[in-house]
Amino acid sequence: MDAVNNKPLTECSFIIMGGTGDLSKRKLIPAIYNLIAQQQLTTFSVLLVAFSATSAAEILEQARPFISALDPIIWEKLCAATYYHQMDFYNEVCYPLLQSSLIDIEKKHELKGNRIFYLATMPQHFETITKFFAHHGIVSNDPGCHLAGQEPWARVVYEKPFGYDLASAKALNKSITRAFCERCVFRIDHYLGKELVGNIALTRFTNRIFEPLWNHKHIESVHITLSETLGVEGRGAFYDTSGALKDNVQSHMLQILALVAMEAPAYLSAEYIRAAKAAVLKRVVVENVTLGQYDGYLQEKNVDPRSTTETYAALCLKIKNRRWQGVPFYVTTGKKLDKKETSVVITFKPAKCLLNICPVTTNTLTINIAPNEGLFLDLHIKTPGTNNHVQPISMEFCHSCLFGPNTPQAYEVLLVDVINGDQSAFLRADEIELAWKIIAQAQTFITPLQTYAPGSTGPKS
Amino acid sequence: MDAVNNKPLTECSFIIMGGTGDLSKRKLIPAIYNLIAQQQLTTFSVLLVAFSATSAAEILEQARPFISALDPIIWEKLCAATYYHQMDFYNEVCYPLLQSSLIDIEKKHELKGNRIFYLATMPQHFETITKFFAHHGIVSNDPGCHLAGQEPWARVVYEKPFGYDLASAKALNKSITRAFCERCVFRIDHYLGKELVGNIALTRFTNRIFEPLWNHKHIESVHITLSETLGVEGRGAFYDTSGALKDNVQSHMLQILALVAMEAPAYLSAEYIRAAKAAVLKRVVVENVTLGQYDGYLQEKNVDPRSTTETYAALCLKIKNRRWQGVPFYVTTGKKLDKKETSVVITFKPAKCLLNICPVTTNTLTINIAPNEGLFLDLHIKTPGTNNHVQPISMEFCHSCLFGPNTPQAYEVLLVDVINGDQSAFLRADEIELAWKIIAQAQTFITPLQTYAPGSTGPKS
Repeated sequence: MDAVNNKPLTECSFIIMGGTGDLSKRKLIPAIYNLIAQQQLTTFSVLLVAFSATSAAEILEQARPFISALDPIIWEKLCAATYYHQMDFYNEVCYPLLQSSLIDIEKKHELKGNRIFYLATMPQHFETITKFFAHHGIVSNDPGCHLAGQEPWARVVYEKPFGYDLASAKALNKSITRAFCERCVFRIDHYLGKELVGNIALTRFTNRIFEPLWNHKHIESVHITLSETLGVEGRGAFYDTSGALKDNVQSHMLQILALVAMEAPAYLSAEYIRAAKAAVLKRVVVENVTLGQYDGYLQEKNVDPRSTTETYAALCLKIKNRRWQGVPFYVTTGKKLDKKETSVVITFKPAKCLLNICPVTTNTLTINIAPNEGLFLDLHIKTPGTNNHVQPISMEFCHSCLFGPNTPQAYEVLLVDVINGDQSAFLRADEIELAWKIIAQAQTFITPLQTYAPGSTGPKS
Repeated sequence: MDAVNNKPLTECSFIIMGGTGDLSKRKLIPAIYNLIAQQQLTTFSVLLVAFSATSAAEILEQARPFISALDPIIWEKLCAATYYHQMDFYNEVCYPLLQSSLIDIEKKHELKGNRIFYLATMPQHFETITKFFAHHGIVSNDPGCHLAGQEPWARVVYEKPFGYDLASAKALNKSITRAFCERCVFRIDHYLGKELVGNIALTRFTNRIFEPLWNHKHIESVHITLSETLGVEGRGAFYDTSGALKDNVQSHMLQILALVAMEAPAYLSAEYIRAAKAAVLKRVVVENVTLGQYDGYLQEKNVDPRSTTETYAALCLKIKNRRWQGVPFYVTTGKKLDKKETSVVITFKPAKCLLNICPVTTNTLTINIAPNEGLFLDLHIKTPGTNNHVQPISMEFCHSCLFGPNTPQAYEVLLVDVINGDQSAFLRADEIELAWKIIAQAQTFITPLQTYAPGSTGPKS
């Protein structure tokens, strides 16, 4: 609810479980650095927690290249408040030690004890850490924890993937629910921290030229695309157990679909938005599935040479409610495709043929999420020098041109939300489970895995 | 119906009555030059007709500075086919001489006798010329004249102003109707030859994102503005008998209003479009009128020092039909204002307050007719780094950026239409009379003439 820019944030400690990992070094430490640089974060500490014998200095040194335009004074502030704590997540006796280490740091930095536990470990550790946090009262399960303004608070952030199928997601949700009050739980989908994703609902509901048209009467189809040019790039071992459906469709893409398709929430607050998204996910049915694997995938490092994991998935989904009857939602994602692009394209129905000419193409609204963030509207106008020929034109709003490099990165936005206790951009238990149900339904389609050439647009059919 | 560019036009002769005048030199000769330069016009002749003792060469020399990037070969082609004929419009014996002079020219240039008589004289001569043209069979009143493909044809173009009030317009229409068949009559409003004016209907009807919203349910108001920075600039004698209401509102602005507000014509042909425009003009009522005169107007050359002629007019009009109930159309025009601009601004109603935020401004669609031709759409998007703040942005389609200097000028477009016999961009008798009725209604409002400072936005109230 609050602007990232120039608004001081409540003091807090960040405890990054899995502090030696990629996410910590590439995203979280740089995001914390940026919040300090923007003078939003002034009183804080960072505790990096992991199994290895290492040091805060060493990890910080590895994170440093991921910070652009590093200011040594800001960096020094961050380093002076960053600590490392070595522990075995599976050894219960380590937890009281973590607790006392935290208390020491909080004393030293005169912190009141607000804590963000960021679970950036491998997902298989989530349940164990959750359980021991609760056992040792590190995170309270007191329902009062969410009362506005009550301090100190403790909040737990879960990175994705959240489960690897419906059953595992349910099990994880169950142990979380048992351990903590829901208001302390922040399940991340970093796509929801992206500006243009956050924009979808606002663009829809605050613009009169879109809002009345946002239904099956005026919209012909919706295309949601997340295509990558890279392959698995060293993440072969993980990716081979996941695949396109689980890695992208289950999380980012169904979330985008839910934002595009949801009914207007009565208020723009977490509970209303999440309820609206869950309601739409509940009505999604899978109509068709195409799966593909790029040529050469089987030769990637740490990939099973007989793997049937899909690196490409194209789904046709329908939403069985009044607003969307008959409108296909095409969800397409893949690796090693011809271009890197995340976008939503709303294709409107053709205008009525009121005239003796008919438009040659339909109108479309494109929301470019990455790269080239922006809105594009394809319309028709008269071809100059003719009386009744039309031709397509594009109107453009270039997001980065206007807002430039000041646009906060997804992880900054999400950390600010956690500090502010705003859950609107985080997933509720039922949303995640509904998304897994859709994936399970997609998996029942018996489709042959088609190969495609790297750099192509995917399988031919 | 046909593209100006690269399509050869039917051969014809242009007879410019008032060939020594400004319009002839500044607009018509350059337009004919451009049609030759674009290789559309290959077989033609031009006969300049006026009272003075002058020559084609002299007039052409005066027209030359109004041609940009003059190519001597093209210019030579034009000069070689241009003639001058001196005559007194009021002396009936001159008309057979004009006729034989024309026949001579047609023979010399091997023309079949298609003729465009362009009445670019002072409007008080229109009736006389019309009458004698008919008497001497120079223009046929045979209803067969309009049959497709029938040659030779003769067409008569009437420049504005078409009458100076309802009675005079009716009288002129009556004599024209008596003299010629309506299909030979082309009453010009050069604004209808402007690309963006021609675009209004096509933009409305061929874009699904606009067409369903084009009514009182979604549109809050429409602003039609034609503001000039210049004063009367030597046209004091004429302007003082006319004024803002008659000079701009009666013609250009009510035509633009009709294009914005008309029902969809079943076909994009002259009869359907003109009927649709007339139907909407019939339902216009004047709700309010503000008139102004700029400081210093009374000191302009050839202006009556006690003149009460308005140089500024702002009208609030309503259209009494189902589509437009309650929607105000604000029509504003004036001289010596702060900027030069012709535009239509469609202001949409605010989006429903479905959220806990309401948009701070409404959406607008701006059609910039001149200068800076283009479409602009003002929307809202999320302010980066916030969760539920919106801010206005502008999406833009710059017409001249895409089509550049190849966009044909209004007079070229209109001459092509006359050659092709396409009357869609010309006014039908009833449209002109309906527009004069609206002006008559506006004149019944007893409003004090307010003065305003040159360079201001007009009268204060």
